Amino acid sequence: MAAKPSIPKGTRDFGPEEVDRRQYILDHIRDSFRKYGYQPIETPSFENLSTLLGKYGEEGDRLIFKILNSGDFLSSFRDSERDPLDLTPGQLTGEISKKALRYDLTVPFARYVVQHQHEITFPFKRYQMQPVWRADRPQKGRFQEFWQCDADVVGSDSLLQEVELIQIYDEVFDKLGLRTEIRINNRKVLSGIAELIGKPEQIIDLTVALDKLDKIGEEKVKEELIGRGFTPDDLSTLSPLFLEYSDNQERLDMLRKMLAPSEVGVKGVEELEFVLGMVEELGLHRSHVVIELTLARGLNYYTGCILEVSAPEVQLGSVGGGGRYDDLTGIFGLKDVSGVGISFGLDRIYLALEELGLFPEQANRHTTVLFANFGPKEAGTSMRFAKILRENGI
Amino acid sequence: MAAKPSIPKGTRDFGPEEVDRRQYILDHIRDSFRKYGYQPIETPSFENLSTLLGKYGEEGDRLIFKILNSGDFLSSFRDSERDPLDLTPGQLTGEISKKALRYDLTVPFARYVVQHQHEITFPFKRYQMQPVWRADRPQKGRFQEFWQCDADVVGSDSLLQEVELIQIYDEVFDKLGLRTEIRINNRKVLSGIAELIGKPEQIIDLTVALDKLDKIGEEKVKEELIGRGFTPDDLSTLSPLFLEYSDNQERLDMLRKMLAPSEVGVKGVEELEFVLGMVEELGLHRSHVVIELTLARGLNYYTGCILEVSAPEVQLGSVGGGGRYDDLTGIFGLKDVSGVGISFGLDRIYLALEELGLFPEQANRHTTVLFANFGPKEAGTSMRFAKILRENGI
Repeated sequence: MAAKPSIPKGTRDFGPEEVDRRQYILDHIRDSFRKYGYQPIETPSFENLSTLLGKYGEEGDRLIFKILNSGDFLSSFRDSERDPLDLTPGQLTGEISKKALRYDLTVPFARYVVQHQHEITFPFKRYQMQPVWRADRPQKGRFQEFWQCDADVVGSDSLLQEVELIQIYDEVFDKLGLRTEIRINNRKVLSGIAELIGKPEQIIDLTVALDKLDKIGEEKVKEELIGRGFTPDDLSTLSPLFLEYSDNQERLDMLRKMLAPSEVGVKGVEELEFVLGMVEELGLHRSHVVIELTLARGLNYYTGCILEVSAPEVQLGSVGGGGRYDDLTGIFGLKDVSGVGISFGLDRIYLALEELGLFPEQANRHTTVLFANFGPKEAGTSMRFAKILRENGI
Repeated sequence: MAAKPSIPKGTRDFGPEEVDRRQYILDHIRDSFRKYGYQPIETPSFENLSTLLGKYGEEGDRLIFKILNSGDFLSSFRDSERDPLDLTPGQLTGEISKKALRYDLTVPFARYVVQHQHEITFPFKRYQMQPVWRADRPQKGRFQEFWQCDADVVGSDSLLQEVELIQIYDEVFDKLGLRTEIRINNRKVLSGIAELIGKPEQIIDLTVALDKLDKIGEEKVKEELIGRGFTPDDLSTLSPLFLEYSDNQERLDMLRKMLAPSEVGVKGVEELEFVLGMVEELGLHRSHVVIELTLARGLNYYTGCILEVSAPEVQLGSVGGGGRYDDLTGIFGLKDVSGVGISFGLDRIYLALEELGLFPEQANRHTTVLFANFGPKEAGTSMRFAKILRENGI
């Protein structure tokens, strides 16, 4: 008697209803990506280990799934009489594994752009919807295999790309019936603030502390800033950030005044203003765009606009995010290619639509006619009728 | 300067045109699967190694991609002072790898059916379209990552399932514009022939030799049969198999006469006759169904109908195949579940359509309007027009 079969922790089987509902979300995202002129690419599930290592930090390196070499993967140790146990797990991995599963879609995309740079016409607008794998400890809502849906433009500095990406977020979530808040910030604004208080190198300390404003409140944030080496003078310079503003215009006015002495800060405010102005002029369906000065999202990565999308009707964290980065492909030797992109989080969107009852009935209703067979003769008759219906696409 | 990035041998990047063309094929296959009442499932990319090992033979075990355990995967050797080099690669793999990439869709499906048997209503008609991975030596037309598209029914003995699967092959290839020959055989006919000459245990020797008839001709096949221990008497019993027949009816007449003494053989002929009769009555669009007595396709696996599809206009090998198996889920402890299924080979179909120029122009024409921007002001105007067009779905 065989043991009851199971699947690895952190992975999932999807039954018919789930596949259809996931497909329903993916179809809407794909439709909008295409409508805005993004072209699909697909990259292999596994890359050379060297392509992925060192791109996601130490923690990321640990969470990359490595594939064991085929055949007698320890033969070099036998031949040279070395002891595998003398090596650290990391060193040994490098000797017995040459391939690893995709960890996100961004690094493979950067690799793709550099590898195919002579076939690509820039600006290159690409979308990619594929699974990624991470050896995270499995827990509720966190999986070792999950899908990412990314759209990026590389080779264009135009802020109109940011405007279009916001339109895509708005369109997709409108079609899905989900009300969203698109939070926007700009790395240059954060740099300007850090510059203003004469501590540009402490931009991360500053942002990490500001990011907690929602959760721990103004007093605790100020305490944390002091703990991270900021002075009471710095805090008084920062004080406009702690005030309440009724709308984006008030926030922009405050920032323009506050950041006037900082060139980069002014640039950031201008960029925010342009994007918000254009978005307002074009109009959105169901989303609101709100300036959120504490929004950072992997600060070392983004260089301009930063975006994050949440669904206020559910308690879920973000359902999407993105921003502008100025040197994505530099890691693979192609310098000065600016890019901007967004990502949709399929699993979170699924949970949100499920919780709010937003999946349409027909997302998994494909069988409309059922034939009941009572014997071989009736079955034959049924099949003849079924054929006619199918030829009419039913 | 970073090295020029590349991808592992045997894997592929797909650019926009290729993704669209692959999607075009997948969409047609999916549409027909759905129309015939098959429901989608998806299984994880990696399974427990124990789920996959031993299911594909020794060669298969070797070609399964194993995923290295996370963390200090040799710690048990350190703790027990064992030497990893004392183990064979296979033994060591079992200690440092617990997961492996899917090798086909059939074993994961069998695992799925057993694991979810209490949620499933039988007969269960499922389709599954996902990539699989094999550590084959990369060569022209053979990849380490490729897609399979399978439809199977489990829990139904009805031959009408076979009829429907042939209709699906016909419909998909008709819609793709590809003329195909669907070759059909029945394991019971092969068993009957082996029984007839009193060598039921030599059915594989018999089939392997017969399978070469096309390539090496009658004389060489007979020599090979003698070499494999068949007698001149056996050959004279087999002689009707070497004659030419003008159509399926003549082949059935010959088989009915020849296999009259074998109960299982007669059953096989009746099954062939029923399926062919029903298919003929319902009519096919563009395919021909031909009895091919040398068709075996993994004989140990199939128990009834055996199908293989080729495209006579191209030199490619088969573009699809399948058949009936009586005990798929037995390996996971669920006995006596009969199944029948077919598979489409995406890569071969792609090559065939490309060679014959059968991809429609619009398979990768999604951008119909291009705006030329000459400055920031014109760009703004363009975006306003673009918005109107997009709202109308262009």
